[in-house]
Amino acid sequence: MSHYGSAPGGYAPPPGGGGYGGPPGYGGGQSQGYGAPAGPPPGADPQLWNWFSAVDVDRSGHITADELQRALINGDWTPFDIDTVKLLMTIFDADRSGTIGFNEFVGLWKYIKDWQNVFRHFDRDRSGSIDGAELTSAFQQFGYNLSPQLLDLVQRKYDPKGMSGRTAIVAPTAGISFDRFVRACVVIKQLSEAFGGLDNDRDGWITVNYDQFMRTVLTLP
Amino acid sequence: MSHYGSAPGGYAPPPGGGGYGGPPGYGGGQSQGYGAPAGPPPGADPQLWNWFSAVDVDRSGHITADELQRALINGDWTPFDIDTVKLLMTIFDADRSGTIGFNEFVGLWKYIKDWQNVFRHFDRDRSGSIDGAELTSAFQQFGYNLSPQLLDLVQRKYDPKGMSGRTAIVAPTAGISFDRFVRACVVIKQLSEAFGGLDNDRDGWITVNYDQFMRTVLTLP
Repeated sequence: MSHYGSAPGGYAPPPGGGGYGGPPGYGGGQSQGYGAPAGPPPGADPQLWNWFSAVDVDRSGHITADELQRALINGDWTPFDIDTVKLLMTIFDADRSGTIGFNEFVGLWKYIKDWQNVFRHFDRDRSGSIDGAELTSAFQQFGYNLSPQLLDLVQRKYDPKGMSGRTAIVAPTAGISFDRFVRACVVIKQLSEAFGGLDNDRDGWITVNYDQFMRTVLTLP
Repeated sequence: MSHYGSAPGGYAPPPGGGGYGGPPGYGGGQSQGYGAPAGPPPGADPQLWNWFSAVDVDRSGHITADELQRALINGDWTPFDIDTVKLLMTIFDADRSGTIGFNEFVGLWKYIKDWQNVFRHFDRDRSGSIDGAELTSAFQQFGYNLSPQLLDLVQRKYDPKGMSGRTAIVAPTAGISFDRFVRACVVIKQLSEAFGGLDNDRDGWITVNYDQFMRTVLTLP
């Protein structure tokens, strides 16, 4: 049993074990060019097209990070962090245009809905946020073998209230919001995969030189 | 000669070899509490106090990341990335309040001014941005021995125009703006120090397990 990576049969983070980015065919390469389309592409889900048009406030035919951030709200009514928005853009901006077209939006929308189900599953006490015990349970079911110290570090890093000494006095156990939970899971997944890619003999240890270390960390989103 | 870290006698990134965060006494622990001070603290530089008050638009006595971002503009009139603003907040928010008080602002101001001199020194062609050759020269003088592949990766990561396929057609060699140059240098410094902290025998190679790897990367700002 290796010390990282998703265990088969565990509660896999969406969209399943095949990496992130949505099912094949979503979000892929179909650039809509500069001109804004007046209507939905043939075969588009009308409801999804309405949502896309609502998010695309300047009617450019493409969603920017700013537009996406304004549209996304956590269950506790806090806005998504720009860090999470940028991570989503990185994952779904298949043609690397810097914006999200309608086809890319379809994949993004499904991804967020899938994560909402995962979040609800692990938010056992229905508080709208993930506390330490819930986070531990989530990573265990995802198949990540994180030490208690590492779990504590992840919790402090992604709990915004935990980051601020002053606010912590007001709300010491605020927990991790939906968007930060997604970010934490994606980051742990990417780091674990990066480590796994270097651990050729699968013994849980890697030996890397400066150049490999720098390249590994700098290529993370 | 090790493969990382600042070489003594090189052109050291500000504020010198003693780590970042400004000289001792700046930005340190002197919380100004919740009440907004009506005037400058005793002995405060009046000009700096005026600048601080101008940035602190809601007159709370503390500067938020949003207020700081609105105040900081690159030489080419582009705004600072929120990532750079947050990095500066992390470095200078000594009391971890989530905001910058006046004493912390004094250190931050000096830090930015020092970096402006460094930037001007390496922007040989006075273009207002750092191109590939200038970046190579900067890291060499800082004493970081980065391979050409790593330099290329850093350049692509911190050149915003380089990141977007569409924009790249318009401006393929836009270069790295001031705020991104600072971020690139701070990130390379922190990564190099993290690697150095793990390379006990200074041979340029580290052997780490999953837990150490994850902790190292997750504790980076």
